[in-house]
Amino acid sequence: MNESMRNNLYAVILAGGVGSRFWPLSREQEPKQFLNVFGSQTLLQDTIWRIRTKIRKENIYLVTNSMYIHDIKKQIAKFNIPQKNILLEPEGKNTAPAIGLVAMQLLFQDKDAVMLVLPSDHLILRPKAFLRVIDRAVNLAKKNFLVTLGIIPNRPEVGYGYIKVVKKRLGKIRVGCVEKFIEKPSLEKAVGFLKSKNYVWNSGIFIWKASLILEEIKKYLPELYKSLEEIKNMQEIYPIWKTIKPISIDYGVLEKSKRLITIPANISWTDLGSWDALLGVLKKDKNSNVFKADSLDIGSKNIFVWGGKRLIATVGLEDLILIDTPDALLACRRELSQNVKNIVELLKKHKREERILHKTVKRPWGSYTILDTGTGYKIKIVEIEPRQRLSLQLHKRRAEHWVVVEGKAKIQKGRKNFYVNQNESIYIPANKLHRLENPLKVPLKIVEVQTGKLLQEDDIVRFKDDYERIKP
Amino acid sequence: MNESMRNNLYAVILAGGVGSRFWPLSREQEPKQFLNVFGSQTLLQDTIWRIRTKIRKENIYLVTNSMYIHDIKKQIAKFNIPQKNILLEPEGKNTAPAIGLVAMQLLFQDKDAVMLVLPSDHLILRPKAFLRVIDRAVNLAKKNFLVTLGIIPNRPEVGYGYIKVVKKRLGKIRVGCVEKFIEKPSLEKAVGFLKSKNYVWNSGIFIWKASLILEEIKKYLPELYKSLEEIKNMQEIYPIWKTIKPISIDYGVLEKSKRLITIPANISWTDLGSWDALLGVLKKDKNSNVFKADSLDIGSKNIFVWGGKRLIATVGLEDLILIDTPDALLACRRELSQNVKNIVELLKKHKREERILHKTVKRPWGSYTILDTGTGYKIKIVEIEPRQRLSLQLHKRRAEHWVVVEGKAKIQKGRKNFYVNQNESIYIPANKLHRLENPLKVPLKIVEVQTGKLLQEDDIVRFKDDYERIKP
Repeated sequence: MNESMRNNLYAVILAGGVGSRFWPLSREQEPKQFLNVFGSQTLLQDTIWRIRTKIRKENIYLVTNSMYIHDIKKQIAKFNIPQKNILLEPEGKNTAPAIGLVAMQLLFQDKDAVMLVLPSDHLILRPKAFLRVIDRAVNLAKKNFLVTLGIIPNRPEVGYGYIKVVKKRLGKIRVGCVEKFIEKPSLEKAVGFLKSKNYVWNSGIFIWKASLILEEIKKYLPELYKSLEEIKNMQEIYPIWKTIKPISIDYGVLEKSKRLITIPANISWTDLGSWDALLGVLKKDKNSNVFKADSLDIGSKNIFVWGGKRLIATVGLEDLILIDTPDALLACRRELSQNVKNIVELLKKHKREERILHKTVKRPWGSYTILDTGTGYKIKIVEIEPRQRLSLQLHKRRAEHWVVVEGKAKIQKGRKNFYVNQNESIYIPANKLHRLENPLKVPLKIVEVQTGKLLQEDDIVRFKDDYERIKP
Repeated sequence: MNESMRNNLYAVILAGGVGSRFWPLSREQEPKQFLNVFGSQTLLQDTIWRIRTKIRKENIYLVTNSMYIHDIKKQIAKFNIPQKNILLEPEGKNTAPAIGLVAMQLLFQDKDAVMLVLPSDHLILRPKAFLRVIDRAVNLAKKNFLVTLGIIPNRPEVGYGYIKVVKKRLGKIRVGCVEKFIEKPSLEKAVGFLKSKNYVWNSGIFIWKASLILEEIKKYLPELYKSLEEIKNMQEIYPIWKTIKPISIDYGVLEKSKRLITIPANISWTDLGSWDALLGVLKKDKNSNVFKADSLDIGSKNIFVWGGKRLIATVGLEDLILIDTPDALLACRRELSQNVKNIVELLKKHKREERILHKTVKRPWGSYTILDTGTGYKIKIVEIEPRQRLSLQLHKRRAEHWVVVEGKAKIQKGRKNFYVNQNESIYIPANKLHRLENPLKVPLKIVEVQTGKLLQEDDIVRFKDDYERIKP
């Protein structure tokens, strides 16, 4: 790849998804892309890491929901991507508006911009092969095609969308033309697709010129195009975005466009769209089980156990998925793991917190975990990251006892400042102005015992905040 | 039943069992008989409650392992049973020694004593029918028979022992003589037993004269008899008990005795010997499921979900048992619920705490729950029952921060006494003598944050204790 091509090539990472089929590990406020499913990095970080040798950091763009801004910033900090490259959607409108938005921004600055559109929550176990496919795709994109990566199936998967491919000669080039898109098929059909070899999985990874995709959006989604044109800069997005109709790029543009081609890819890919899809890429033991938990088993087969601190004992189970988190357990028949989304719908209907938050709640300054609540008290462990501080605040109805168990705290209480060391404690009465800060380069951990008759998170008055959480 | 009969009738409740097949609800230090499986009382309390109109409280005896002494005392407090009626075995030796021990004690004071031997961890859903059967059994016992209650089977249960009965005329009386005992049969055999109507379940409920059972023990277990004779009073039990060989009354005496008869009982009984046995007596919903948890289900059949605070979501499961506790989860195929004992054996092999203790650990003065542990700290919630106090103690390696969140604490720190109210806190440094007391008639709850490099339960030096836990 020559230097000029690198300069024109941009990554557009779609990082606004909710991923409800990965519940209970994913939650609305902690979606799949921010989870550390395998080892050292989150799926989003892996996505950036994979393309680091191909695309300059100044050319990496992220689109996400504004509620994820703090997570995104934290996660991409180590990659030195410019902050201005994070584009915030006021609300999710599916892929077509998000892709159109970035295309428009890119075109302002580079008329030859080529976009590599990447979901942020997929797994690719052959990253080098992936980069080779991308090189081919970029060459075709430069010849004015909309290029989609088609994954060569290795099993009759019913959880994916398929693309029927017909090989054609377009002028001088032989390409795989897209005959049609097929939504999740029946098992019977999926078996047929696997045999025929004319079908690939729709990966949601696309490569095209910003100018071409906007041309096609103008042709097939003229209303969306008009709205996108109106967004001259990101400050003006709110009122316009509200009026945009949600639609996917597949359904809105690709299924209609005459410029769409697909190139086959063999890159050990999964969209992690269900627990079973994850299981599809994990290494099994001799009884076809996968245990990622503190577990004991007697005689189970084809089961997948994922857990944390708790002990999970299994006896004689078959074809089952058990996903254990501190506040919620999922037990699901393997072939029904797509139905987890129905559980999430039930949770929504019943207004259950377990849909939205984990027991450990992330905050821009760190996190807290509620250990216990009872009449008149709540116990939290609060972790403040190095050099971060909470807002200057007060609570009208609760007092707080803090015991420092790790690190050293700098505490403002009223007008005075204190340093509180490990194994020391401090008391903050109700209505007392206070601020908690970690002044060191190591983590700070405190135990907070709240007492009072009303102990709600929204009993907080903020006076100053490092994370712009004070609404005017 | 006339008054003289009541005077001669004694209940002997066997309350020393461990009940490993009810894990993870039961633990070694919290066995089945002390659990509240149904509603308002524990199984032990239910056992006493059932016979309250038939047997005077002075005539109710309990045999248990000495490690359960505090639990037993708490549980029977409301029945006003004399403390001397609790006989403590230094260690469990199965049923024959325990029954022989009480028989000997009863005979000292009443040569005509009739014993009703009752396991403490069974469920009987027809208590009135049970009392009627007992009346008949007592009459036969007085005629010098060893009487065992035989439960009329209603299903081909493979988890129970069976007794083959032959009806005979012994002198003037028609009785069911025991032809043989059958250990847990195959399903095929159990189906045959159910059809033939000559088989009953061995309930472990026995009625006999103390004098007769001792005669039979002397005949068939002469060594045990000799040992029992040596125990003149309970203070002398330790060295003698050590030498006794564990053996069940069934195997050691009943299978050999010529005096054994059985009377059939239809009392909706279960020994709760497995999760499936419990399920056998629970009411099912229209899909044959039982949910005793905060649960959400989509399309499961024949499943049993038992839980606590955590949400349990189930999708498309069949014939499954899910038992969730704060520190351990069991997922078991229904027909394999007998194998839970093998999990408990594995836990023993791996020296896992989850076999022995619950996350909430009971103490004679109340309980504590470990909420979190980390490097250098441990967080507990400690509940002290009304008018109880912990020992006068010190810890060599840890400091303790206490925040009172409910009630009022009386605290000795060094030589001084303090009252600490709700929403107040106190600090106890390492090596400081201290004592925590609940002076009121309402519960006291404190949050304890321990800090220090070594945080082990055995870092305690006791100086005074209300519960005789200071070893000389």
